Formats: sequence, structure tokens, C-alpha cells
Amino acid sequence: MSPSEITCKAALATAPNVPLEICDVIVSPPQKGEVRIKITHTALCHTDSYTLSGQDPEGLFPAILGHEAAGIVESVGEGVTSCKVGDSVIPCYQACCLNIENVQPCKFCVHPKTNLCQAVRQWTGCGIMKADEKTRFRKASDDTPIFHFMGTSTFSEYTVVHEVAVAVVNPKAPREKTCLLGCGVSTGWGAVYNTAKVEKGNTVAVFGLGAVGLAVIEASREVGASRILAIDTNPEKFEVAKKFGATECVNPKDFANEKIQDVIVKMTDGGVDFSFECIGNVDVMRAALECAHKGWGESVIIGVAAGGKEIATRPFQLVTGRVWRGTAFGGYKSRVEVPKLVEKYLAGKTMLDEYVTHQMKFEQINDAFDLLHAGKCLRVVLSMDE
Amino acid sequence: MSPSEITCKAALATAPNVPLEICDVIVSPPQKGEVRIKITHTALCHTDSYTLSGQDPEGLFPAILGHEAAGIVESVGEGVTSCKVGDSVIPCYQACCLNIENVQPCKFCVHPKTNLCQAVRQWTGCGIMKADEKTRFRKASDDTPIFHFMGTSTFSEYTVVHEVAVAVVNPKAPREKTCLLGCGVSTGWGAVYNTAKVEKGNTVAVFGLGAVGLAVIEASREVGASRILAIDTNPEKFEVAKKFGATECVNPKDFANEKIQDVIVKMTDGGVDFSFECIGNVDVMRAALECAHKGWGESVIIGVAAGGKEIATRPFQLVTGRVWRGTAFGGYKSRVEVPKLVEKYLAGKTMLDEYVTHQMKFEQINDAFDLLHAGKCLRVVLSMDE
Repeated sequence: MSPSEITCKAALATAPNVPLEICDVIVSPPQKGEVRIKITHTALCHTDSYTLSGQDPEGLFPAILGHEAAGIVESVGEGVTSCKVGDSVIPCYQACCLNIENVQPCKFCVHPKTNLCQAVRQWTGCGIMKADEKTRFRKASDDTPIFHFMGTSTFSEYTVVHEVAVAVVNPKAPREKTCLLGCGVSTGWGAVYNTAKVEKGNTVAVFGLGAVGLAVIEASREVGASRILAIDTNPEKFEVAKKFGATECVNPKDFANEKIQDVIVKMTDGGVDFSFECIGNVDVMRAALECAHKGWGESVIIGVAAGGKEIATRPFQLVTGRVWRGTAFGGYKSRVEVPKLVEKYLAGKTMLDEYVTHQMKFEQINDAFDLLHAGKCLRVVLSMDE
Repeated sequence: MSPSEITCKAALATAPNVPLEICDVIVSPPQKGEVRIKITHTALCHTDSYTLSGQDPEGLFPAILGHEAAGIVESVGEGVTSCKVGDSVIPCYQACCLNIENVQPCKFCVHPKTNLCQAVRQWTGCGIMKADEKTRFRKASDDTPIFHFMGTSTFSEYTVVHEVAVAVVNPKAPREKTCLLGCGVSTGWGAVYNTAKVEKGNTVAVFGLGAVGLAVIEASREVGASRILAIDTNPEKFEVAKKFGATECVNPKDFANEKIQDVIVKMTDGGVDFSFECIGNVDVMRAALECAHKGWGESVIIGVAAGGKEIATRPFQLVTGRVWRGTAFGGYKSRVEVPKLVEKYLAGKTMLDEYVTHQMKFEQINDAFDLLHAGKCLRVVLSMDE
């Protein structure tokens, strides 16, 4: 029996900068190479908020946002072989086309240095699906097509994603926690392990103490960093940063007449081995680079800057040995590696519960965004009715 | 018998932007940890020209410029153990304090990722010597002290340098050629081998086809790069670029309505694996970064930008996997590795003669600068009377 249309609740982003509208949407059946997922839990991330704000030049409306979630496969389209109905899954906004029967991996997936699979990027970037270049969502009330977002659109009870964006994970893992592995926490861990390759004894500076920054701190502690400097203008975040592994906390506002990079350089006898920007502020990106040690310090940009803003520095900073990098999804090849992160969590070898500060009902999503904007949460996890 | 003062000819930079003045200078004996060298050959490099122009914010006058040279040890100061009178040497503007009896290497020299020895940097940056924080040069006519430059000051028949800046090389090597290993050629080679670590089959783009750019091309060919794109606005340089190993030459002026990075990205199906900026132009540095392949492309800044100019790009360029680096002296730990480069040349495993386009007498140094400014030479080697 072919899957049929499903009518369900979704949180619709109707226009920039207005609250999401909870309404009925019709979700089409999955087409060739697609998977329909019943979302059980979704978290909110700053990227959702950024697009909703209207600042994202690629933002489309109306759309269903959301990209950090977990769920269960409800049905699969023609030719799908890497997952089946009932599988516990994490949708991956960064796809990965490795290890799928009859799929020739893209040149990015076979390259050892990158995780930026391009198999479906040109369609997900336009809010549509590859098979027919259309959307699988429309509004129940008037049939208006609704764009997908980041290839995931998890602010819906059901969503359709490309097969290359589905990580099948251990069904025993609690989805109300593992949903976080769809974005922020994985990104922070991977930035340390895959992008920077921090080693035992290194010194680290982390700018921005949200979930991503804390994940960077956690991973840095795990690899044995000797000093982990946590930097934020909100000192209320320092206690939790120390719980995750920060050895020192620094508030740039305490040094009104000094650049924060100069403060860090002084504190660390020349700068840190690795720095991480987890905010999305181009001035902080510069500070993060310039607090890296002359000769060998490396800085990793994780935060997403608002549209069009540029980073700058004197080239002398690089000529004297600093390295400037960035990371997306922490360098993890998503479908292949997210299941391993779930196992690591199940084995008790990593934190995850500690990133969830609030649990709410899906219908409270606008209240959840208010918490995010107020900086009052790490991660709010919304649960759907089951 | 202690060494005494020497009066000899030097080319004096008396003030910004005026021709050098050939005059008699008095060179003091080497002090503790210093070496006095009879310079036999010196080449000209753009950094000399840059400082002479007055644009270098660290430039001091009067000074004796010059940093790409070869010579013979004339005398040594107290405690010097790593070279002796009569040794054939190359002065190194980038010092290296490894492997010297009774010298504790600095933290940079023992670090595997950098060659930026800081043992004498704070003094060479001020045009003076470490032992007494004074200069060893003064003008014969009126005793005016003359500043050192880059710790080398090779535009003089005799110079005094710190022991940590002296590479002892095979005396059989012709100094009229090996003098080039003091800067530009070594820098280009090292950028490929040490900084970028280009591998067989990689694609490479080289911006700027002076001696440094050609050395990058030569080394890229040696490691087996599959494509080597040579980029310059002066097409007269293309023939020699091909002789050194360029597989394609590109003139940005042929693409008036298109950015050169977009041209390169199209030519190479997404960008090159490695790009090198060998000019010192911040706009070209940006182009070089942005023509690197999404996901894994790396760009190395080699050129020195005029004072205060900044590089800029959208952070998205890094978040999508490009890496921005720089190099100084190609990452070679100078005193230890320059002698090996000399051996490689003697074994016929590298070009060097081909970089020397002009040989002139030391007295013709201002004519040599004219050739350099006109872009009519690769390297002009000046010989001193022996």
C-alpha cells in the first residue's frame, strides 16, 4: 500500500519576525529517495531564530523551520534502502551520501577532509525536494505550498527528508535527549575532535557559552586540554561553563580599556593553542583569531554571522603562523557518524542530558523562542503528542 | 688576538625613498654570541624595497638593508660555537636557536609547528644587537650610528649578525647562487612542502610570478601537482612560469567582468586544493582564499602587505571548509634546514641558477633596484670585490 497524505500540526513561519503559527499542514508521501518521519522531539537552535528574524538572505517564507530533532520513520519512498519504517532516526541538515546501496557518493563525501555532502544541497537550499523540485508541505486551509528548511523542517509532527539526510540510530536511545545530536552539541564536539584536533595539554579559548560553546568545553576537557578559558559577556553562564569543564571564565566587560584578545594573550603567555568562536559575531571571530598563539595557534569559526558581514584581520596575523578555519556540523559525516555519537552517549561517555534545560510541549514553541532570545536556556526540547 | 673594527663599503639607506648611498662604514667587532661575516654576494628582495620606500611602519633610518646573501665568517664573538672563521654561511633573517651548545632553545624552536624563533626578535626588530642593545655599524665620515635591518644587513661588505642567524653551508656551493636561499626561493619551496603540504595529484593556483611564485611552482611540480595555475597581470612572465612547471597561465585582465577567483573556480570544477599569494596585495589574498575548493581548499599568504592593510572575507568561506594560513621563510627552521637546501641544490635536485636573471657589481645596487621596480628581473645578484 502506498503511503498517503497526512494532515498534522506544524509551526508555520509565515513571514519574517512574526510568531510561528501552529496550524494544520498536509504532508505529501515521500517520493523516490525520500523518507517521511514522525518527529517525536525537536529542539530550537539559533539558526532557526536567525532565519525567522528575516536576516538570512536565503530565508524563504512560508516555511517550516527546525533542524535539531529526532523521530521515527513513518514511510519511505521508492528506492530507499538505508532505513525502514519504524527506525529511530535523527534528521541531518548536513546530508551524507556515503554507504547507500546504488548511490554513487559525491566528491565531498569521498574526500577525507570534508563532511559537506553536496548530494541534495542545491534543492535544500531552495526549500524543495530533489525528485520533482517541489515541496511536500502545503497548508491544509488553503493549499498554499510551504517551503522546507535546511532539508529537515522538524517543527512539524511529520516531515519529509531526503534519504541522504537520515541517520538511523539505536532505538534504545531516548529521543528527547538525542535530538540535540542533530546540530549544536555534535557541532561543538566535532569542532574539537575533527576540525581543530585538540590534543592533551593544549590550551583552549571558547567564545560564547551557549550549547555549542559548552560542547566545545566538554570535548576539550575530554581530550585533556590543560587550560580551557570560557569567555562570555554574561557572567551568569560561568557556573555552568565550569561544570562542563572550563578552568577559567573571562568577561570581556571587565576589561573595558583592553581588547579581549590582548587579555587572553597576556593570561596565556602568548596566546592559546586553539580558539573557538561559538557566537556568530565577526568582531569576536577576529578576537578569537588574534588570541591564538603566534606560530601555531588555530582558530575555528563555528558561529554563523548575520548576512553579509565580513571578517577581517591584518595578514601579518596569518604570516606569523596563526591558522583560520571554520566548521559546519563539526566536520562529522552525518549519517555515518551521528549513530556513533548516540552510542557514545548510551555508553555514558559523554554528557547530553545536561544541555537540556527546558522541556515543553510543541504547542509552546513561541514561548520557547522567547527563552532562547532571552538567553535563559541552553536547549529547549519540545515534545510532540504521541 | 681580538677582532678589531673594519672600515668597508656599504649601501646606506639614509632616508625613505631616496637612492642608497655607497659610503664607508665602520663595522664593530662581534660581541658575545655574534658573528662578523664578509658578504660575498647579496641579492635584492621586495622587502628591502618596501622598507626603503618608507611604507614599512617598523622601518628605521639610517640603516643598512639587505637580507638575501651569502658570505664567509670573518670573526666570531665570545661563546660562539656553531660556526668558525672561514665557514661559508648564509645569514638568516629568521633566526633558529636549535642545536647550539649551551643555548636553551626558545619555545618556538622546540615547537614542531613553527619556525618563528624569537631568540633575538625583540632586538632585530629594533635594528640593534642583543648583547648591548647597540648597533655594530656607524658611518665612517661622522660616526653616526646606523641601524641593522632584519638582523642581517647584507648590503655591506661586512656585517655582524647573531650566532642564531648563521647557517653554515657546504663550502663547495657557489655563493653567487646559494645566496638566494636566504629568502625568496626557500620561502616559496617551504610554503609548498612545510606549510601547505601539497601532495601528488593536487591542484594549485599561484598568484604572482616573481621568484617566490616561481619557487612555489617549482616545488608543486616536484611533488606532482596535477595542475599548476600561474596567475599574473603581466603576461610577459608566463613563458618563464611554464619553464618552472606551470601547466596553465591566467591573466586576470583578460576577465574584466569577472572576479579572478570565480574564473579559477570555473576552470577547476569548484576550486583548487591549494592557493598561494606571492604578491602582498590584500585583494589578491582574498581572491586566493576564495578560489580554494569548498570543503578542503587551503590558501597560504606569503606576500607581505603594505602597512596596516587588512584582509577580509565572508566567514562563510571558512565555515564551508576553506583554511587560511600564512608562512614566513616557508616554515623552514633556518639554521638547521638551509644547509640541507644547499645540499639539495648541489645534488642537482632543484633549480636555483634559473632564478638569477642579472649579475651586477655591488656598486650598481641602485640600478638593481630600478630593475626590481620595473619587474624586469627575477633576482639580481650583486657581488662584492674579493
